[in-house]
Amino acid sequence: MTPSLNPLQQAQQAAIAAARAARAQYRAGKVAPTAGVAPGMTQANMIALPRDWAYDFLLYAQRNPKACPVLDVSDAGSPRTVLAPDADLRTDIPLYRVWRDGKLAEEVADATALWEEHGDLVTFLIGCSFTFETPLQEAGIEIRHIADGSNVPMYRSNKACRPAGRFQGEMVVSMRPIPAHRVADAATISGRYPSVHGAPVHVGDPAALGIADIGRPDFGDAVRIEPGEIPVFWACGVTPQAAVMASGVPFAVTHAPGHMFITDVADSTYHV
Amino acid sequence: MTPSLNPLQQAQQAAIAAARAARAQYRAGKVAPTAGVAPGMTQANMIALPRDWAYDFLLYAQRNPKACPVLDVSDAGSPRTVLAPDADLRTDIPLYRVWRDGKLAEEVADATALWEEHGDLVTFLIGCSFTFETPLQEAGIEIRHIADGSNVPMYRSNKACRPAGRFQGEMVVSMRPIPAHRVADAATISGRYPSVHGAPVHVGDPAALGIADIGRPDFGDAVRIEPGEIPVFWACGVTPQAAVMASGVPFAVTHAPGHMFITDVADSTYHV
Repeated sequence: MTPSLNPLQQAQQAAIAAARAARAQYRAGKVAPTAGVAPGMTQANMIALPRDWAYDFLLYAQRNPKACPVLDVSDAGSPRTVLAPDADLRTDIPLYRVWRDGKLAEEVADATALWEEHGDLVTFLIGCSFTFETPLQEAGIEIRHIADGSNVPMYRSNKACRPAGRFQGEMVVSMRPIPAHRVADAATISGRYPSVHGAPVHVGDPAALGIADIGRPDFGDAVRIEPGEIPVFWACGVTPQAAVMASGVPFAVTHAPGHMFITDVADSTYHV
Repeated sequence: MTPSLNPLQQAQQAAIAAARAARAQYRAGKVAPTAGVAPGMTQANMIALPRDWAYDFLLYAQRNPKACPVLDVSDAGSPRTVLAPDADLRTDIPLYRVWRDGKLAEEVADATALWEEHGDLVTFLIGCSFTFETPLQEAGIEIRHIADGSNVPMYRSNKACRPAGRFQGEMVVSMRPIPAHRVADAATISGRYPSVHGAPVHVGDPAALGIADIGRPDFGDAVRIEPGEIPVFWACGVTPQAAVMASGVPFAVTHAPGHMFITDVADSTYHV
């Protein structure tokens, strides 16, 4: 902390330092979900695809902006992003998933070998609903999975995304239980962040989204739903992984759900 | 008007009918700026590029979202858009510009022959600041170019866009004179529409944007600035045309500035 910084600047510097420290830990091999880490700093979903698949995916994202809001796209072959200039996209995510022919092949903590296998990977960083969790908490709304130290529950829904080229698939949603009298606040606050999924896509009945058992998420962990709480669903940045599966994409690297890329960009940047 | 429609539904049907009627006039050969036409219906900028250039442009748009907010992308070769299912992108814009090797080659009222010349054109429809002009007017803010029946003034600025592949160029801005005590309202109201350029990029001094003479716009018409009014600048969807020039793109078709594509989508769709 330089003494000449004012308190706000000190807080901003500390937040960026926390983001850098977290990335350094992941780079050194730590594997853990990132919910609640480096509060106030934007976390991002990641998918890297060979250059030949990049246009179809970017178009898929454009056509499904609630699920796939693109925050940055790397140049082909580059592990760099403007969202965190000193980061390395091959090592700074806690856990990666490797996809071959649309199937999950393995999970790795270091993806360097995969960038060597494919020299022209284009990396997409996609907004994450974690960004509006800090303002929700500041408004006094408990985020259950943070309170319980678990990963956010995510579900494959029955809502089809609009196809693009060789990409198709359904929307994946994240769920947070919200007290009935705070649902409107949660919708309003998250709606101010359209580039990180924005307002909920569904409130209430999981069956209407094709979710048979709210207690058994497809990704992440189940969370308690207390009496008086309503399950609220947001479009989720794991949607590209569902598309990789549904489309039989030959090769992709993604983050593991809940294990995000932590950027140097403040959440407030995405507030409108 | 079907009697069973309520007044709101009747108004929505009338607005869509106005959009369709306007497109039919342009298809029949009418050439005129579209400011103030079919109020409440979203108007869009257009650029069509050969498929080989589509990825670079989509990436350019993603990297410069204030200037190039993409509302829809056609499939290669298709003159159709989900924003107006019965429209034909080759004929339903009042005036097109044809670009060859980065230079304006001609203006035409019908672009059918150009789609025949290049069978794989990908058409991008990009948000237009006209979308927030209706709510600005509803808030009692006069839009000078509509009041005077002219085209909005647009300027090439000195702000460089972030390059992408073979695309580079500067941001083009549109200008509206706003009374000093309404500038905050204009910023707040337009800011609620991030996918159609959103809040202003600059308020006041044109020289700071590299604009030497506010009375001589690069596109559109000059407008009166009355005493007590401040020039307010928004990112403009003519930015792709500046990129076509700066990047020496071999072939492109665009709308002529101010001569937009009128969709069947209500402006309110883009409100957050």
